[in-house]
Amino acid sequence: MAVRNFVEIVTVGDEILLGATLDTNAAFLARESARAGFEVRRTTTLPDAPEPLREGFREARGRGGAVLVTGGLGPTPDDLTRWALAEAFGRSLRLVPELLSELEEKFRAFGYVTPPAGNATQAELPEGAVPLPNARGTAPGMLVEDDHAAFFAMPGVPHEMEIMFREQVLPRLRARAGPGLVEVRQRVLRTAGIGESALAERVADLLDGREAPKVAFLPHGGSVDLRLTAAGLLPAAAERVLGELEWALAERLSPWVYGRDDETLGGAVGRALAGAGLSLATAESCTGGLIADTITNEPGSSSWFLGGVVGYANEAKRDLLGVSWETLERAGAVSADTCVEMLAGARARFGAECSLAVTGIAGPGGATATKPVGLVHFGVDVAGAVRLERATWPGTRRGIKQRAAKAALLLLLRAVEARGHGERGAGDARGRGDARVAEGGGRGGGEAGEERG
Amino acid sequence: MAVRNFVEIVTVGDEILLGATLDTNAAFLARESARAGFEVRRTTTLPDAPEPLREGFREARGRGGAVLVTGGLGPTPDDLTRWALAEAFGRSLRLVPELLSELEEKFRAFGYVTPPAGNATQAELPEGAVPLPNARGTAPGMLVEDDHAAFFAMPGVPHEMEIMFREQVLPRLRARAGPGLVEVRQRVLRTAGIGESALAERVADLLDGREAPKVAFLPHGGSVDLRLTAAGLLPAAAERVLGELEWALAERLSPWVYGRDDETLGGAVGRALAGAGLSLATAESCTGGLIADTITNEPGSSSWFLGGVVGYANEAKRDLLGVSWETLERAGAVSADTCVEMLAGARARFGAECSLAVTGIAGPGGATATKPVGLVHFGVDVAGAVRLERATWPGTRRGIKQRAAKAALLLLLRAVEARGHGERGAGDARGRGDARVAEGGGRGGGEAGEERG
Repeated sequence: MAVRNFVEIVTVGDEILLGATLDTNAAFLARESARAGFEVRRTTTLPDAPEPLREGFREARGRGGAVLVTGGLGPTPDDLTRWALAEAFGRSLRLVPELLSELEEKFRAFGYVTPPAGNATQAELPEGAVPLPNARGTAPGMLVEDDHAAFFAMPGVPHEMEIMFREQVLPRLRARAGPGLVEVRQRVLRTAGIGESALAERVADLLDGREAPKVAFLPHGGSVDLRLTAAGLLPAAAERVLGELEWALAERLSPWVYGRDDETLGGAVGRALAGAGLSLATAESCTGGLIADTITNEPGSSSWFLGGVVGYANEAKRDLLGVSWETLERAGAVSADTCVEMLAGARARFGAECSLAVTGIAGPGGATATKPVGLVHFGVDVAGAVRLERATWPGTRRGIKQRAAKAALLLLLRAVEARGHGERGAGDARGRGDARVAEGGGRGGGEAGEERG
Repeated sequence: MAVRNFVEIVTVGDEILLGATLDTNAAFLARESARAGFEVRRTTTLPDAPEPLREGFREARGRGGAVLVTGGLGPTPDDLTRWALAEAFGRSLRLVPELLSELEEKFRAFGYVTPPAGNATQAELPEGAVPLPNARGTAPGMLVEDDHAAFFAMPGVPHEMEIMFREQVLPRLRARAGPGLVEVRQRVLRTAGIGESALAERVADLLDGREAPKVAFLPHGGSVDLRLTAAGLLPAAAERVLGELEWALAERLSPWVYGRDDETLGGAVGRALAGAGLSLATAESCTGGLIADTITNEPGSSSWFLGGVVGYANEAKRDLLGVSWETLERAGAVSADTCVEMLAGARARFGAECSLAVTGIAGPGGATATKPVGLVHFGVDVAGAVRLERATWPGTRRGIKQRAAKAALLLLLRAVEARGHGERGAGDARGRGDARVAEGGGRGGGEAGEERG
């Protein structure tokens, strides 16, 4: 039996087409539809203009299936969804007396004797349409359908639309789909420290010719997620193919995988440190506080993060982190030697067991003859075991900051994990860094109170 | 003469159709197209699946005109835009040797001997297509056209797409449109330190019953922009109504307006400090480095930003910033007294003329009987003139960090401006803060070299 598990989404509004408003309604409907097992075939945004709206609806009707529409149901002259739906289905608009009574009732509750001018149009429906009650506003939604297509029109106000979708639309969609509707199941593997192309190359043989699950590479904020999607399978089969591929990918990409689904890199670092009973201080130059910001986005980070120094000027590296002026002049601020001294300084000044340091050139200025924009030295010190790496990244100032922050946090995570596996001081497990042993600093005093500033 | 001033936008990607990613590319293209005078006729999102993608492109080709496409140009097997464009135009894909050479060149610069497997497909174009150079990444864009329609395909990575649109696509769109293009003109007023509802209430009388310009309130990242749009007017009339309303709004909202159009708060602070020849150090607790990160996103910030301390633990506030243990025990970490000592400590330790300090409770934990989640004390010291404020904000941990960061940077901007206007040490111009005079610290040594780590 054919399962009618496709939907289309149509959002109506000049605000979206002008780029003034992000289309969060489309994202909500897409997410909720996918979770319920419907595949979103496409999303379209149409303007508050009669001709394009009617044509867009006609085309969607021609493609058939269920169409989720939001917007254009208000009382003003540029609210044209009712009219365009009637046109697209070749029906006329009719005032529905019961709807008018309900509207008048709602407006009386707001203190009006009769609805404000224009609001009576909200009681009009195309012939044969089924009204969908609006639990949180005045404009009712509607279902307009024939043998081929079903349009569910909802208001554009998000909190009105969301409850109408959940209570009025989704049950009807499910009834239309009948039995056999299969949920779309997803897993996400999160990686850092490696680019999209290099990732794809490393797993190409695992994905070649594979029908399910489908794998998407999603780069964002300096790192890449892999999303595995199984659609059109029964639950047990979906879980099996997802589990198999997830395991194979995670093994292949183990140096770079830091988490699954909604886990964050800062959260993974925090769990590792808290689990090992270690505290952390940071010493940032080119990342400019982004690492500390990332860490402190995690609730509870104050239990393992003591603080950090953003040592932007060389004097700040010297005065706040104890980097020697001789090193800054000889090797330069962007060097492995400076990075090592930043690590030691951060541990000592904050009395932390672990430290993380980054120094590099985010650009666009600051390059020298031997040090290009994008060159970054970074390192970690985990209870005396130092790992250092260097990289040169392309991209914008912000992009370089993001990649450096993610790479440094990943290095820290791996170093804390390695310590847990008895590899203390073994150096860089990935074989690309220098291993040195720095002075260990003692842990500072206990917590002074319940507040954290 | 008919003006060809319509465009369509097509974004490609399962992550958008699944509701996993907001379609910011569509919003960018819509906004920039509208600014340039093009009317966006519709926006469509299509999946990473061969059949629906080809059909969607065929339909758009059938409607004719200019079509802006983003996404699906990467090197992985689910990047299908090239193939679907070739199909929609009935052409074959061909490897373009010059593009392959360029790709190889780019990858060599990243340290590859040959491009990673799969990347060579990025050198394939439909017959007759014109490549559009990618200034920031590997995948070139392309223009595929016939007498009826012109498809401009761009990468899905926002910073690659944006520069390609501005430099490669927009000039070609303008050439296609010819003379007679009527621009949609926009202005943006950027505010911080005040919420959307409070803003709207303060300017309601200026907007009531006004036809043009249209005003939209756009909250994001802890602050709110006001966008003024004049469409369908001749240039002189548009400029007149925009100028009048912008002036009235800016005057009414002067305590909160920090810039216009693409100006950032960090950039405004930087210009003010650089103009006054002042240097800055930061002392952050609950914002956790977000302020330093915001500042260092500005190119050239190393000329006025010396660095900062993220003093998360109380010991860090004492050891790195010189906050007295007595103050921390008596008044608490989240207090005006601690904030004042953080300001003095940051100036002294970094040798900066100005400092900024924030201490608060970002939540969800950390509240006490008298100090709720969202309570934040923040202040600035501009060459000895201290201003302090406190606020209690609702919202998430991240939201509170963002609002605190924006509010503190706004306070700094106003204090530096006031000094420029001869109001040295006059305290808070908005009349809500304490004014105190702290010890002034001397400026540290000169710059040591051309690098900044």
